[in-house]
Amino acid sequence: MVNWGIISTGDNATKFVKDLLIDPSTRGVHDVTHNLAAVASSTSLQKAQDFLSAVNAPPSTTAYGSYESLLADPAVEIVYISTPHSHHYQNARAALLAGKHVLLEKAFTVNAAQTRILVQLAREKKLFLMEAMWTRFFPLTLYVRQFIKDGAIGTVQRVVADRNLGRDIETLYGTEHRLVNPALAGGALLDLAIYPLTWIFQILHHDSPLASGTVRSPPHVSSSLVKYAPTGVDETATVIVTFPESKTQGVATASLRVASDPTHPGVRIFGDKGQIQIFGPAARPLSIAVVAYGEGGPEMVEREDFEIPIGHGLFWEADACVRYLLEGKTESDVMPLDETLLIMDVMDRVREENRLKYPAEVEAH
Amino acid sequence: MVNWGIISTGDNATKFVKDLLIDPSTRGVHDVTHNLAAVASSTSLQKAQDFLSAVNAPPSTTAYGSYESLLADPAVEIVYISTPHSHHYQNARAALLAGKHVLLEKAFTVNAAQTRILVQLAREKKLFLMEAMWTRFFPLTLYVRQFIKDGAIGTVQRVVADRNLGRDIETLYGTEHRLVNPALAGGALLDLAIYPLTWIFQILHHDSPLASGTVRSPPHVSSSLVKYAPTGVDETATVIVTFPESKTQGVATASLRVASDPTHPGVRIFGDKGQIQIFGPAARPLSIAVVAYGEGGPEMVEREDFEIPIGHGLFWEADACVRYLLEGKTESDVMPLDETLLIMDVMDRVREENRLKYPAEVEAH
Repeated sequence: MVNWGIISTGDNATKFVKDLLIDPSTRGVHDVTHNLAAVASSTSLQKAQDFLSAVNAPPSTTAYGSYESLLADPAVEIVYISTPHSHHYQNARAALLAGKHVLLEKAFTVNAAQTRILVQLAREKKLFLMEAMWTRFFPLTLYVRQFIKDGAIGTVQRVVADRNLGRDIETLYGTEHRLVNPALAGGALLDLAIYPLTWIFQILHHDSPLASGTVRSPPHVSSSLVKYAPTGVDETATVIVTFPESKTQGVATASLRVASDPTHPGVRIFGDKGQIQIFGPAARPLSIAVVAYGEGGPEMVEREDFEIPIGHGLFWEADACVRYLLEGKTESDVMPLDETLLIMDVMDRVREENRLKYPAEVEAH
Repeated sequence: MVNWGIISTGDNATKFVKDLLIDPSTRGVHDVTHNLAAVASSTSLQKAQDFLSAVNAPPSTTAYGSYESLLADPAVEIVYISTPHSHHYQNARAALLAGKHVLLEKAFTVNAAQTRILVQLAREKKLFLMEAMWTRFFPLTLYVRQFIKDGAIGTVQRVVADRNLGRDIETLYGTEHRLVNPALAGGALLDLAIYPLTWIFQILHHDSPLASGTVRSPPHVSSSLVKYAPTGVDETATVIVTFPESKTQGVATASLRVASDPTHPGVRIFGDKGQIQIFGPAARPLSIAVVAYGEGGPEMVEREDFEIPIGHGLFWEADACVRYLLEGKTESDVMPLDETLLIMDVMDRVREENRLKYPAEVEAH
């Protein structure tokens, strides 16, 4: 059993905690249990208490009216942080300095420099640190990656992944909402493109075989952002990532404004012998189709649903965290820190190419 | 009736001429007739004669063993040129200088400078000149464009278009084949990406409304090419084209190597009220699906096949050429020269960004 502390009482924290409180046996998991030790609001004890009522937390859970007090609680072993991106760096840094393990929501930080410092700090203090890229821990995702490793679609050549909200952002978000607010590091890139990018990196980087003795070169990045005029953050982001050794390309598209047909696969993985199509949002994949290119043309060889038994699907990453801690591991092999850092570097490049800067205090480190 | 002269006896010329010889009434066309006046091989009269037999040309058709002799034939009114890209500039220039109207295959030329010269020459000599972008003349294409203009999918936000061959290029093309040969301006960009780009430009540029008094800015281009190591041309091309005024993006993907599932739409047009999916190769679209985003989620509102009655589908552009000539027009409003030039500029930018140069004699003008 591991004792969780939760920093933030927002929507993501609610979903995460609800998932944490589900009996793991409902998802066939028997080696892991979670304890909700504490929840903190940054501003008011009342908010934290309301949160505990709303999620039906066990009476043993402590409510805190500041993050500092939660971090000072010796009962808390690992902290889950789901504040806005703009605050990830300072929140995670404080948690690590307080000696806590950390599961930090994506985008991990605002820029790669902040990530680099957190990674170094966690390694120095031998604390667990991971980007909360829940998508990587879905049974569907693990299945797809193994399926590709088994050669089912031949050599992978391209990954195209898409994540759109389709929102009327003027009406819905105005200028203050975190998704469009530069002071909160808003925009499509950090919030949405991170999912297409994680698909691209796990397939074309993480699982891409490298000839022995070869040093992997950094990927080449080409990108274009469409800015949201009222605030200057990106409402649409398109990123091409090219991997020099494998000569493969990933194309990530993401938009607050563009709508997309959810019956269409949000992720497509192109191999020379076939294609995997992933349905459901790129963040929360729900089913796959496999098309094989045979002599007689393309043929659907598999269509499989991967149901989320109960809850939202955030528990799989939480289970993984507990296992890492029980095994004494301080990094994940599914979402390694070096890969988080590489992806942050890519997003830095995209922002640089497109002259997207957040306020100095947000970029500071 | 218009008298055609054909320059080249290759596969494209064969398809084009076969289509030209089909009775237009089979496609419901009664205002246009075509006459095949002459065909020329660059090297041998025999080749031209064999070509005429192979296509069952009428006995009145003249065979020529050189392009010069065909261009000197006063019976020829318009010349169709389907030589390799590397030769388009010199062939089309010679035809215009000989006073012939010209339908020139795509990629129009190797670079924008060559296009600029041809456009200027045609305008000076008041001769008809058009890029043979047959895809734009398909009834399906005209239907889709009108459908969008009628507001069926709301405001268009993004176009994603894909064109892949899925070939084992080492085995199939080696180093000499025109598709991989730098001396023939080979590569995915000029040969394949031109189709995704034409979809992007006709929807996001040509048909994109511009506020009165606004001057259209050139699109922003971001791209990445994967090179084919044995010859250095691009085996894969991905291009993002962003249009500043409409804040829309087009994503063009094209590859000699990557394979794709032909049951998947090669072109997708994203609007804020729905999406149009186009099936069949992006070059030769065959059916569409329209998905509307309603209150209750996306809904397929239309699925329509657009059959090609008899032949390959090149006759629609040929019919249009004859109509333009009969009306005394020297430019097409469906595939305007300024748009061809703009797309050539984009491809120049892509090659520059990715340091792809053809030999000096190919780039010369």
